[in-house]
Amino acid sequence: MEAVEKYLSDNAGRNIEELKQLLRIPSISADSKYASSMTEAAEFVRKQLADSGCNAEIVETAGHPIVFGSWTNKPGAPTALVYGHYDVQPPDPLDEWVTPPFEPDVRDGNIYARGATDDKGQMYTHIKSVEAWLKTVGELPVNVKFIIEGEEEVGSDNLDKFLEENKEKCACDIAVVSDTSQYAPGIPAITYGLRGIMCCEVTLHGPNQDLHSGVFGGSITNPVNALATLIGKLIDEQGNIQIPGFYDDVIPLTDEERAAFAALPFKEQDYMKSLGVSATHGEAGYTTLERRWGRPTCDVNGIIGGYTGEGPKTIVPAKATAKISCRLVPNQTEPKIVESLEKFLREQCPPGLKLEFNHWHGCPAVVCDLNSPYMSAAKSAIEKGFGTAPVLIREGGSIPVVGTFKEILGVDTLLLGWGQNTDNLHSPNEKFSLEAFQQGTRSSAWLWNELGGQ
Amino acid sequence: MEAVEKYLSDNAGRNIEELKQLLRIPSISADSKYASSMTEAAEFVRKQLADSGCNAEIVETAGHPIVFGSWTNKPGAPTALVYGHYDVQPPDPLDEWVTPPFEPDVRDGNIYARGATDDKGQMYTHIKSVEAWLKTVGELPVNVKFIIEGEEEVGSDNLDKFLEENKEKCACDIAVVSDTSQYAPGIPAITYGLRGIMCCEVTLHGPNQDLHSGVFGGSITNPVNALATLIGKLIDEQGNIQIPGFYDDVIPLTDEERAAFAALPFKEQDYMKSLGVSATHGEAGYTTLERRWGRPTCDVNGIIGGYTGEGPKTIVPAKATAKISCRLVPNQTEPKIVESLEKFLREQCPPGLKLEFNHWHGCPAVVCDLNSPYMSAAKSAIEKGFGTAPVLIREGGSIPVVGTFKEILGVDTLLLGWGQNTDNLHSPNEKFSLEAFQQGTRSSAWLWNELGGQ
Repeated sequence: MEAVEKYLSDNAGRNIEELKQLLRIPSISADSKYASSMTEAAEFVRKQLADSGCNAEIVETAGHPIVFGSWTNKPGAPTALVYGHYDVQPPDPLDEWVTPPFEPDVRDGNIYARGATDDKGQMYTHIKSVEAWLKTVGELPVNVKFIIEGEEEVGSDNLDKFLEENKEKCACDIAVVSDTSQYAPGIPAITYGLRGIMCCEVTLHGPNQDLHSGVFGGSITNPVNALATLIGKLIDEQGNIQIPGFYDDVIPLTDEERAAFAALPFKEQDYMKSLGVSATHGEAGYTTLERRWGRPTCDVNGIIGGYTGEGPKTIVPAKATAKISCRLVPNQTEPKIVESLEKFLREQCPPGLKLEFNHWHGCPAVVCDLNSPYMSAAKSAIEKGFGTAPVLIREGGSIPVVGTFKEILGVDTLLLGWGQNTDNLHSPNEKFSLEAFQQGTRSSAWLWNELGGQ
Repeated sequence: MEAVEKYLSDNAGRNIEELKQLLRIPSISADSKYASSMTEAAEFVRKQLADSGCNAEIVETAGHPIVFGSWTNKPGAPTALVYGHYDVQPPDPLDEWVTPPFEPDVRDGNIYARGATDDKGQMYTHIKSVEAWLKTVGELPVNVKFIIEGEEEVGSDNLDKFLEENKEKCACDIAVVSDTSQYAPGIPAITYGLRGIMCCEVTLHGPNQDLHSGVFGGSITNPVNALATLIGKLIDEQGNIQIPGFYDDVIPLTDEERAAFAALPFKEQDYMKSLGVSATHGEAGYTTLERRWGRPTCDVNGIIGGYTGEGPKTIVPAKATAKISCRLVPNQTEPKIVESLEKFLREQCPPGLKLEFNHWHGCPAVVCDLNSPYMSAAKSAIEKGFGTAPVLIREGGSIPVVGTFKEILGVDTLLLGWGQNTDNLHSPNEKFSLEAFQQGTRSSAWLWNELGGQ
């Protein structure tokens, strides 16, 4: 490990420059304009894996390609499957970025760019740790496989099929994913639970065109008013979601979990200040951490309808659209929630409108075994890589692939987050700490060591 | 009147040719490129007034000039003030015009051109009727003044100031405006009521930027959900607006008015079909015409917040904005409605949000006295000019100048519409029936007679 750690120190500057190259590629999976950038990013990752000493290939899919890499020359040792993604969220709103999203800029010890933490920067630590082992020791203490996909931000539509068709190729003992966060600066964490997600879009169609609100207003249903009213019915004043059956399958947080969450350092005032809000607010009877990690939600992610330019325009709009997502907790199932929501909306829809409902692929929540040997190895690796033991937490986001790995490959996932919640993921000015990048890479190198010692 | 009517018949062809000259001038007030055309159109109108036998002058304003004309040689007789406008809407989209917008073309008994009905053609009837009286009888039975402005299509910014500064010059007993429509072909109408309007914009500011809905969702108020919920509280399921005090000052429709509306030819199925909706819907207990003409509304004209592009984006948006307008009925006052709405929104706003509220200038509703001698004169004049008695209707839109005349000059307005709702005003292929042009001119000539007979 001494040689491995020295190699990582010696090559720290080069690793950052390489990461910058990757961050310059606008690999926005949601927007078909960027198709060639997707290919470019996949090829960049493939080449890095190959240069590190792995076998590496591009696997075409019906959507964006998957990069598959492997080093499996250690028969009898455990096999770890590293999962990450090279695609990123759209960067809008562009005018809120201090420096352009695809021109990485280092300021105050952070690298700023879309994808810095989610997930290019975090994913890259595992490629570099493998390289360090293979370039120094010449081999790894474990077998390692990589699946780096390009559709994480748009629902991983083609990943399941790839896994289903390549079960043998992807077979492993444990999956490793770095796409979460530390608990706080200086407090690394292992995330043992994630919320699931359901995403949909509802459009209410009214008149065949925008109408003069004086001539026609009051005589037909206004699609924007109607959509707002529907949305208003989703959550009551106590923060309880009103979709019938929504909470039926929810496994409540245990007393132990609530006690552990309460023991974590968390300052409500600091949290409010960091978000720029004067109050936290949510489901009655729960703390902020419980609401974020262990309770389901129903958020409108976007809404549009009618005239949205400057000044007034007195119309009855022709239509209105909202994107709605629910964060799910264990044991809620996405199909059941989708169905209940659609039924609720259709039943409550006023006369004279046509309701169009679409939904995207979602995923269930997961909670992993806290007592497995892999969990012990990860705890030890992080303690060595960061110099401090990790806390065990849940997160509120969704990493659908964790459920997929359990379902298709039959393995748990170690969620080892190197980033921070304040890294502006999915927001302007996304960033990743350069120190965390080093600590993560070192922890990853240690992880191969600790897993190999099992 | 015999001589007057003969003069109008004899000169019908010339009148149409003159109208064509006016229609050839692209007097688009919204576009500064057409400044010289504005001057040209104003001068054309001034000259026509002068040629008819009136005093006529161009009055410069901070914007486009006002043409003022008068014939006031009948002391003791009532004074009528004719209001109209020589400016027109932009003609876009140009490629949808069958013949160019500023090359008037006569087809199927209609003259096609931008401004044909709104308002050059309608306004011109009153100049020609005055000419007919002065060229035959040598005098009018009443005093007549003209205010023909050039900023109606851009908000009449300088009209109020002109009226305030020229109260004596503009003093009159009744205003006359032909800028509305007949009820239907063959059914001339007097519009005795208009709704007023209140326009505002509300923005809810939440977190300082869009946030990841997984990491933060459930712990802070989502501005889009909150705005939707607020909007949802504005109107109940019966279509009743829930802003406290909203209906306090409303003067209900009288039984006579409701009976008169019910007697008008109106086919609900045709109306639904023309708008492309499967049902009409509105305030319980009212018909479609009552809802459009005699009841107040609260319509969202536009809404925007969060991610509105393609596909999903799982964020808690930083903010959400809605434009809201209320159509007002007599005796609601715009300042009171603005204040009530803002108060309601602020009181219902959930914790952790900042509410920003802006409003634009609105105008009150107007209803003119159905029993005034002026109304009787207008009814009689239209019956003689069209050969059929007019129906008495309201309209749902707003004509701010009517409120202005009431407020500054203290007079009611006779809204005598010669056009049709289907004349494509503000749209491509605007037209005006040549028959309606003659009928309107004759009705106007009769109006001076009937008003003078009081």
